[in-house]
Amino acid sequence: MADKHYVLFEEQQKDRGINLDEVKEKLRTIKIETPSWGYGDSGTRFKVFQQEGVPRDPFEKIEDAAQVQKHTGISPGVAIHIPWDYVDDFTKLKAHAEQHGVHLGAVNPNLFQDDEYKFGSVTNSDPDIRRKATDHLLECVDIAKTVGSKELSLWFADGTNYPGQADIRKRKHWMYECLSEMYNALDEDMRMLIEYKFFEPAFYHTDLADWGMSYNMAQKLGPKAEVLVDTGHHPQGTNIEHIVAYLLDEKRLGGFHFNSRKYADDDLFAGSLNPYELFLTFYQIVSALYDEDAGVQKNAKSIAYMLDQCHNLEAKIPAMIRSITNVQTLYAKALLINLDEVQQAQEKQDVLAAEHAVRKAFEFDVTPLLRVVREEMGVPADPMAAYLESEYGEKILKRGKGGASW
Amino acid sequence: MADKHYVLFEEQQKDRGINLDEVKEKLRTIKIETPSWGYGDSGTRFKVFQQEGVPRDPFEKIEDAAQVQKHTGISPGVAIHIPWDYVDDFTKLKAHAEQHGVHLGAVNPNLFQDDEYKFGSVTNSDPDIRRKATDHLLECVDIAKTVGSKELSLWFADGTNYPGQADIRKRKHWMYECLSEMYNALDEDMRMLIEYKFFEPAFYHTDLADWGMSYNMAQKLGPKAEVLVDTGHHPQGTNIEHIVAYLLDEKRLGGFHFNSRKYADDDLFAGSLNPYELFLTFYQIVSALYDEDAGVQKNAKSIAYMLDQCHNLEAKIPAMIRSITNVQTLYAKALLINLDEVQQAQEKQDVLAAEHAVRKAFEFDVTPLLRVVREEMGVPADPMAAYLESEYGEKILKRGKGGASW
Amino acid sequence: MADKHYVLFEEQQKDRGINLDEVKEKLRTIKIETPSWGYGDSGTRFKVFQQEGVPRDPFEKIEDAAQVQKHTGISPGVAIHIPWDYVDDFTKLKAHAEQHGVHLGAVNPNLFQDDEYKFGSVTNSDPDIRRKATDHLLECVDIAKTVGSKELSLWFADGTNYPGQADIRKRKHWMYECLSEMYNALDEDMRMLIEYKFFEPAFYHTDLADWGMSYNMAQKLGPKAEVLVDTGHHPQGTNIEHIVAYLLDEKRLGGFHFNSRKYADDDLFAGSLNPYELFLTFYQIVSALYDEDAGVQKNAKSIAYMLDQCHNLEAKIPAMIRSITNVQTLYAKALLINLDEVQQAQEKQDVLAAEHAVRKAFEFDVTPLLRVVREEMGVPADPMAAYLESEYGEKILKRGKGGASW
Amino acid sequence: MADKHYVLFEEQQKDRGINLDEVKEKLRTIKIETPSWGYGDSGTRFKVFQQEGVPRDPFEKIEDAAQVQKHTGISPGVAIHIPWDYVDDFTKLKAHAEQHGVHLGAVNPNLFQDDEYKFGSVTNSDPDIRRKATDHLLECVDIAKTVGSKELSLWFADGTNYPGQADIRKRKHWMYECLSEMYNALDEDMRMLIEYKFFEPAFYHTDLADWGMSYNMAQKLGPKAEVLVDTGHHPQGTNIEHIVAYLLDEKRLGGFHFNSRKYADDDLFAGSLNPYELFLTFYQIVSALYDEDAGVQKNAKSIAYMLDQCHNLEAKIPAMIRSITNVQTLYAKALLINLDEVQQAQEKQDVLAAEHAVRKAFEFDVTPLLRVVREEMGVPADPMAAYLESEYGEKILKRGKGGASW
Repeated sequence: MADKHYVLFEEQQKDRGINLDEVKEKLRTIKIETPSWGYGDSGTRFKVFQQEGVPRDPFEKIEDAAQVQKHTGISPGVAIHIPWDYVDDFTKLKAHAEQHGVHLGAVNPNLFQDDEYKFGSVTNSDPDIRRKATDHLLECVDIAKTVGSKELSLWFADGTNYPGQADIRKRKHWMYECLSEMYNALDEDMRMLIEYKFFEPAFYHTDLADWGMSYNMAQKLGPKAEVLVDTGHHPQGTNIEHIVAYLLDEKRLGGFHFNSRKYADDDLFAGSLNPYELFLTFYQIVSALYDEDAGVQKNAKSIAYMLDQCHNLEAKIPAMIRSITNVQTLYAKALLINLDEVQQAQEKQDVLAAEHAVRKAFEFDVTPLLRVVREEMGVPADPMAAYLESEYGEKILKRGKGGASW
Repeated sequence: MADKHYVLFEEQQKDRGINLDEVKEKLRTIKIETPSWGYGDSGTRFKVFQQEGVPRDPFEKIEDAAQVQKHTGISPGVAIHIPWDYVDDFTKLKAHAEQHGVHLGAVNPNLFQDDEYKFGSVTNSDPDIRRKATDHLLECVDIAKTVGSKELSLWFADGTNYPGQADIRKRKHWMYECLSEMYNALDEDMRMLIEYKFFEPAFYHTDLADWGMSYNMAQKLGPKAEVLVDTGHHPQGTNIEHIVAYLLDEKRLGGFHFNSRKYADDDLFAGSLNPYELFLTFYQIVSALYDEDAGVQKNAKSIAYMLDQCHNLEAKIPAMIRSITNVQTLYAKALLINLDEVQQAQEKQDVLAAEHAVRKAFEFDVTPLLRVVREEMGVPADPMAAYLESEYGEKILKRGKGGASW
Repeated sequence: MADKHYVLFEEQQKDRGINLDEVKEKLRTIKIETPSWGYGDSGTRFKVFQQEGVPRDPFEKIEDAAQVQKHTGISPGVAIHIPWDYVDDFTKLKAHAEQHGVHLGAVNPNLFQDDEYKFGSVTNSDPDIRRKATDHLLECVDIAKTVGSKELSLWFADGTNYPGQADIRKRKHWMYECLSEMYNALDEDMRMLIEYKFFEPAFYHTDLADWGMSYNMAQKLGPKAEVLVDTGHHPQGTNIEHIVAYLLDEKRLGGFHFNSRKYADDDLFAGSLNPYELFLTFYQIVSALYDEDAGVQKNAKSIAYMLDQCHNLEAKIPAMIRSITNVQTLYAKALLINLDEVQQAQEKQDVLAAEHAVRKAFEFDVTPLLRVVREEMGVPADPMAAYLESEYGEKILKRGKGGASW
Repeated sequence: MADKHYVLFEEQQKDRGINLDEVKEKLRTIKIETPSWGYGDSGTRFKVFQQEGVPRDPFEKIEDAAQVQKHTGISPGVAIHIPWDYVDDFTKLKAHAEQHGVHLGAVNPNLFQDDEYKFGSVTNSDPDIRRKATDHLLECVDIAKTVGSKELSLWFADGTNYPGQADIRKRKHWMYECLSEMYNALDEDMRMLIEYKFFEPAFYHTDLADWGMSYNMAQKLGPKAEVLVDTGHHPQGTNIEHIVAYLLDEKRLGGFHFNSRKYADDDLFAGSLNPYELFLTFYQIVSALYDEDAGVQKNAKSIAYMLDQCHNLEAKIPAMIRSITNVQTLYAKALLINLDEVQQAQEKQDVLAAEHAVRKAFEFDVTPLLRVVREEMGVPADPMAAYLESEYGEKILKRGKGGASW
């Protein structure tokens, strides 16, 4: 049936002046990393519901991630979290990944689960704790070099719960000092992606609370520092695609942590709520991919796409597959926007026509397109169905309950 | 020094036509329960930082709570959470409380930490799980009868994370069925306080999401069911005091879970952020205490005041004392509002005068008043200082780390 | 081209077990009223940008609305606002509507633009002003009887800007008194739809601030009173579809005011932002249409669908057409949900399958279906294109600038 | 009575180690500009309720502003809005101000009320409109030079209502070009204060949506460009004092537009809602006033304090006086924070003690202090009472209704 649908789809898009070969090429080459910690148990402060079959160590996490890559073909990277994924020999972990058809991706330092970080890590008023935190950052740079990863994703839980608890401005300086040291340890082809978050776990102030604070820090540090946008880390109502366009224009958009939210940092699977917002984000990216400014184009091409979500209730591997295909679906739709048509309407200041030129692309059913793209890539046309039909989900149940968690 | 300050304060308030004796009487008789679980370790989904000296069992929790009562004199009740505070012999726990000068307060069933409640408790599509949940509710009614508590505080984590996950309307009916059974088990002088919450741990829909859903449930159940307002459970911007006034007018305001928040359900200690909001809440209550409608007055007098907060970073007992004194402070200020003055300005539709008649009461420093009230009650004039000077905080350190948590 | 697409679409849906005849029947029979005031000039507090061609009186507004009906076939009703649409002879206005193929719909009293309503209308502490407001409500009931309208849509701007400004509880009683009088004037087959709003123009408290307050008022008044949900009148993050499901279950969902928003009550055209939310709202409605409970079904069938939006920047008539087709599109998608499939997954508590059973319907491109439905109805397959090709938009320019506004 | 109270207050603060002379000096020297447009009629998009006695031209606005200065002594500047305050001869307006004991303050260009700005001013895709907008900015620079004002406050309504409506990145560049031209026209001792706003009147994207965008623009432009913080222009939950501390640390905090809000940009009078937030903002400023870094100190000393609020329901002049005294009150309280005590608790990471060291200052009643400060300044001890007792409010009624509005 896909054939008939695709034939019609192709005809339709050609009539619209869409270069489907280019669209398909882009869909084949996007890469979205999955997070090793997304395969382990997770929950809320109220309860972690353990699932059967959850991986028990970093090696099993990579095996699970390899299933996602096997079925989608666009998630070959696996982000790791240190110390959750700490192993004695990272070359072994790297080799394990490669044997399973994936590679180790962004390295994520963890500066929030040690008792000493109760009042901050790189912002702690105690210089010994800042030293320890910085050493951990440097250790992660080393691990990245060992495993061949070019990105370090930095999220800091640092903040305060009460007015007066700490000196906001001093903390800002301390963080800069620690990050400078880390920055200097990076190779020329490495980069640090600086994440920000509106709140949680800090409930009064968060040291890096918004894109502006991450961006300013990145600017001070230098060109190897960029901003990481987690789609769940903003105040309600924030126009995320505006921030994305802004950072692209400043050539400082490092990457994404995709996930969905309705309220706070709910970490639901990507694309499950408000898919139009994700489409509009990709619209800004696609528009930048074709920008006249080579620097903007270059930034758009180098975005590190990553998932960062929890599957508290749903099965882990299928949820990850759904996220990948959701992101792919919304990217495909954004690629169907006729940018010339949009621009012409914008020039005429015809609001309805300009809006519609964007919106109509969202309405297409891109399933036939994605099936064909996947077949061309040699992965299942329906990744989810193929995974569910495989015996992998059954096989891992023997791991039992009580696997890795964060 | 307190004397001179109080003399001036007294003079000032008498000039304003405030009946200080009545104010003092109200300040002496308000009772604010502390939650047993507020003495244990707590944290966020990212980390629970354990504290030294945390109570290891329900008996030690009560001892800690007794310290708060000893120093404040207005927190003689200790709310308990089942099964966190489950003991083989509740009469023993009750006696222990009484020996320490406190009593067991509201009984809080827990329907969110058993694996079976992953997809809901009283709203679960599986009738066996609903049965189990209802039995737990009934068990809690029994415990309440045993310990002599007249209130059951009901918070349900029930909800869904994704559109389509469950049938919203069916769940509504199932919840009603379970609660009806519980309602029928209550003695005539008992009541169930039905809490609502905007979100968390459910991230798509929460079965009791707002006051309207709790209120409607209470109405269907009957007069022994009332609404419990947790000050951290609303969307941003919600006018909580309006809801309080509304429920008082409907004679269905059961009680409060006090705590502070800036973002979501942050559970910071009461009064620490936006104290004016808490003052305005008490303004509505004070106004109801003097209402012409006897039913409204009666409701205002029967409000169950309770704290429900976490002390993730700060010491437990002092945080509880601060909360109690913060609530007391803001209640005291609200009692200094000259309601006649407010009413006269309202009748003239003089916005600035009416607003000012309320606001000016907030500006008074009520420290001298509270010192005198405490002295009259035989508790320390400065509860926090007195506690910190006591050796209790030191003494309990020998409990070590790893005490009770939720 | 539509043919080939529709053939494939039909085949696809039949394979899924969807009864397309029933879907089409529902799409033909839904009616969405447009608001007369949506054709006039509108703006923000900062500026009203006047458009050329805006209707100059109620008769011209109806002519414009008739264009929307002519091109969409599902918007035969035109809601009116009194006194904006006040005419000496309403039978003449009614006849005018009928001559243009439309009819007068919901009557909307206006209680916020007279100087006397500065401090409230039905909640004003001045009984004369309440009398005046009530008389206006009664006048609107009369107008509704005259023009044959069965619905009165009630939105009150009543509220306060400052704490203490007014007595919240008294205002609640005054409103009830006024609305009771209006309620008693309704014929048996008439109904009043009570709207609520989170804030604006009141900035401290709004007398009917949420669905719970409207619902409680409706309950007190009686069965002819129902709740009106304006999609822009909620706090950020509110799960609107939950409220819709809740009201359907209580058989008190009166109708909708559709529009889009990202921040507050932005009044953008329906479906332009977060279309998935509107789809999920229709999912709840479709589910109720097939409910076992006859009362729920009946409520779902009697929902009054209305638009209430401003077109500050875009052309009025085309914006209205876009809104109608957007609503139609999202309703069509919701009708493609296989409710059995959803239910089966829900019963298995298979979160991913249940979510997907809903979501997949959203992914279909329903353009071919809507083209066919429209052709069957005798309206243009592409309403917007047809309107733009007509000369109507050109013709009305001779009205010039400075037409009706609100 | 003030005496006795002040004697006790003085004793109390000296015991705490507070240097009251310094506090009083700071309270005498703070200056808070009032906005000329705050004396005219204002309202919401639903209705402007006209008041009697509203000034009919810029000269009368200045006379009204002079009343605020006369009674408070700390509001000698009057911000003007062009073209609302456009007069043929600005030297005459300047002289008029001086005759009334005030001076003209920040000049505010208006780029949102001309029909041509419907789709943007400095971001409009039409170069002629950008030219016109830039010319207006340059004209305002000239006016500022003429009247001797050193500040230009820039708020842009520029934004879009729908996705795709305009090219976000191009608009960013256009705005920079226009502002550069303006920047170059500034004298060395002048500065431009760049305001940002979350939303309204734009409902999809606002070109300067947050502090980060204003700050980045200021950085690109040069040292004469700084950020203007309007307290009503943030998403819900935003920690404004954090942004203030951040900008002070970057030495880019230009000034404030004070007002209160519960929901959106409600523009209620300053300090009327959440006074603690304003206190905490002043805490950050006071802390910066004593910073070791001379640049931070200098920034803290050069902050331009301004009101920007609407008085839709309340009388204009008294509302302005209340705002000034509210700001003064909260600044006074912040000056009572013992910064050494805070710092010592912070160094010990004693959360409760640090929080309390800040909070306790908020609890003092500073009325006696302010009475004394005012007496020393030769202004009424109770500015509001003095104004109300004056005949000014009565006198201006003869202006009638229908004065200036914005």
